[in-house]
Formats: sequence, structure tokens, C-alpha cells
Amino acid sequence: MAKKAEADAPGIAILGGTGDQGLGLALRFARAGAKVVIGSRKPERALEAAERVGAAVAGAKVEGCGNAEAAQQAGIVILSVPFEHTAETVKAIRTALAPGQIVVSMGVPLATALGDSAVRTVGVWQGSCAELVAELVPDGVEVVSAFQNVSAHRLQALEEPVECDVVVSGAKAARGRVMALCALVPGLRAIDGGPLANARIVEAITALLIGLNIRYKLPAGAGIRFTGLPNP
Amino acid sequence: MAKKAEADAPGIAILGGTGDQGLGLALRFARAGAKVVIGSRKPERALEAAERVGAAVAGAKVEGCGNAEAAQQAGIVILSVPFEHTAETVKAIRTALAPGQIVVSMGVPLATALGDSAVRTVGVWQGSCAELVAELVPDGVEVVSAFQNVSAHRLQALEEPVECDVVVSGAKAARGRVMALCALVPGLRAIDGGPLANARIVEAITALLIGLNIRYKLPAGAGIRFTGLPNP
Repeated sequence: MAKKAEADAPGIAILGGTGDQGLGLALRFARAGAKVVIGSRKPERALEAAERVGAAVAGAKVEGCGNAEAAQQAGIVILSVPFEHTAETVKAIRTALAPGQIVVSMGVPLATALGDSAVRTVGVWQGSCAELVAELVPDGVEVVSAFQNVSAHRLQALEEPVECDVVVSGAKAARGRVMALCALVPGLRAIDGGPLANARIVEAITALLIGLNIRYKLPAGAGIRFTGLPNP
Repeated sequence: MAKKAEADAPGIAILGGTGDQGLGLALRFARAGAKVVIGSRKPERALEAAERVGAAVAGAKVEGCGNAEAAQQAGIVILSVPFEHTAETVKAIRTALAPGQIVVSMGVPLATALGDSAVRTVGVWQGSCAELVAELVPDGVEVVSAFQNVSAHRLQALEEPVECDVVVSGAKAARGRVMALCALVPGLRAIDGGPLANARIVEAITALLIGLNIRYKLPAGAGIRFTGLPNP
């Protein structure tokens, strides 16, 4: 744990990259040629997930290891763990993070964390999962909110574009770096989501989308687009 | 005030129909041939707005009067008043409402109600503006949440379709009647938004859209679409 991360390391670490959404992002980023490090509490599960990515994407630059080790190897660290494991995961990697690194929060405080339904959220004292994460990271580490509204199923369907906008919120320079990541995935469009507190709204949209998936019977998952924006 | 509303009256009342968004809906519904009754606290202002609609839409069936009188003349009563006037407006028309009528809440608890910014919301004890309204209407009157995310500017630009989805939440039969209204406006698509409590999310989306309008300099206003839904 003494080793600190390289803030400008080129790779993307995905903690909880063994879950559906994290694995989907790993597949997409690997396919775009990025170096991907999958992290998990159990390194052997991260290795398995890395093997799946390697099998699906020819020439994938992908590794699997424990969460802290993964966080040390990438300039951008994406947290893709169930909301109820967010705080413990960040605390466990805290000493591995270094100033200049970006931690991306894609968690949503779904009420499933309390055994209730995924169509609604629970209140988070800090306002959102992303702001909870921001309270826990060391000074100098920027937290950015993104990717909450992207369907795991559609991420994993590698031959199809992912028709979804990604609202990216956080400090300006850091959110610009995360907005650039969206360009790696066909179909995703980065939206400048302003300050981190807007994660409160973006996280809640996921619960609304899950409700739509149920009411409209959409196993592949709904997404969002914003209209009226200037064309890129 | 003794007269009660006809619950199945065919018209649409728009209380606060003198404001930008209410006037925009009045123009659109009148253009589709619906009977529109514009309500205002000041009947003379409602009359002025009705004259504007009549001047813009040939053959418009439109009237203007006080809020309570307007509410008595329509099966569907749309509340389009600033959030901070919501409770007083509903209390003022309460005795005019009758079981079977539908009240549509399109208000958003923007922080402007407290002199703060329109890019964020304030907390409402009941959970949302729509649920506040639901607490205030008489028994048997259904409250439905809709139209919060639709740009007033785009509603008023009568020659253009309004590229926006409308998430409609509330009791099932009532929300079906409001979803049918969306078909009157070219471009609007009704989305089955499930139970009324989902208004918490939909109302907050408006604050996010206002932030986008500022960051992207969009005087005509952004909107939303959901992707992955079955085609109509």
C-alpha cells in the first residue's frame, strides 16, 4: 500500500469491474484500445473478468487485480460497485490514491441498498453517491459523476452503439477528462453536467429509467438523450 | 363558488395560463382544436392571454377568467403557476373542484422560490410539487404530474415540433387521460411515468435542463428523450 498512484497514468481502472455495468465499460474501453485495469475485492474474480474481456476483444490491454492495486495503475479510477459498498470501497483504496487522480462515481443510491425497490432512491446525507465519494477521497483527488444512466446490457452488446447521453459533473478540468472518455464508446455523448451536486439529479434518473424498463418491458434498458443541444 | 366542476367537461383549464409555459400550452392545445380556458388570479390578465391565443390561432376556442371559474369549466385542470404560488392557488380553487376531475401539476420547486438559483431545487416535505398538490385537492380529484420538462419557448414557437418527451405520473386511469393530451402537440411524446412520487425525479430534471440551457447557451431550451423504448 505504500506505493502511490501515478496521477497521469494512461489507463482506466474499473473497481467493481466484475459487475454488469463495470464489465460493460471495461469491454467498451478495451475495444477502443485503452488500457483497462479491472479491480475487485477478490483479485481472482478480477482476473476472471479480465479474461472475459480478453476473450471478447482481440488485442485487449486488460488486467485484473485487487481494488487498491488497480487504483494505483490508472489516472482515472471508475467506481462501479453497488451503492452500499461505496464507502467501504473508497476507504479501502484511500491510501492508494494520489493527488491529480480522478475518481469517477457511477453509483446510484437505489433503495435496493435497504432491501426496497430499484425504482426509487434513498436519501444520502451528502446529497448523492458522488458527493459521498468526494467526502472520502484524499485532498487533491477529484471526483466526477458519470455513466449512471447507461444500460449495462447495451454496454455489453459490443456490436451496437449505446444510444445514451452521459451527464458528466464535477470540477471543470476533471469533468473534461471524463467527457473525453465517452468518445471511446460508439453512441455515448458526453454532456457538460456542471458541478458535482448535479449528480443528485442524474443518479435519480437511473431509478426512473429502471421503472421505465419494468413498465415497458425493456430487458436491454432505456437511456436518455437531451434535445436542443448544438450539434457536435 | 357553489357551482362545482363537471368532471368530464371536455375542455382544458390552464391556471397560470398567462405565464410563459402555460401560455405555450394554451397556444398548442388551442391550435389542436381543444377548448382552452385560461385562468389567472386577475381575470383581466387571463382575458388578455386568451386574446393573444385567439390572435395567434385562427378559430381558437379559448376563454379567460379567474382561476376558480376556469377550474369549473374543464375536466382537466393544469396548474402552471410558479412553485411558490402552488399551495395558495390550489387552496383558492379547492371548493370549485369536483370528484373525477384531474389536476395536472407541472410545477417545479426551483430554488428561485427562495431567491436562490433555478439550476437546483428545494426540498418539499411531501416529496415533490405534485405530491404537495395531491395533499391539497379534495377527495376524488386525481393529481397527475406532467409537462415540467417542456421548454416554454419551444411551446410558443408554433411552427416547430416540440422535441421533448413528457413523463406522466399518477394513478393509472388519470395518467392515461393526460398522456392522451400530449398527442395534441406535435413532437411531444407521452411516457408512462408510473406513480405520482416519480414527479420527484421529473421535477428535478427541469433544474438540470435549466443548467444545460445556461452552460450551452440555449435560449430556446433543451429537452429530453428516452431511448430504447418501443416505437409507437
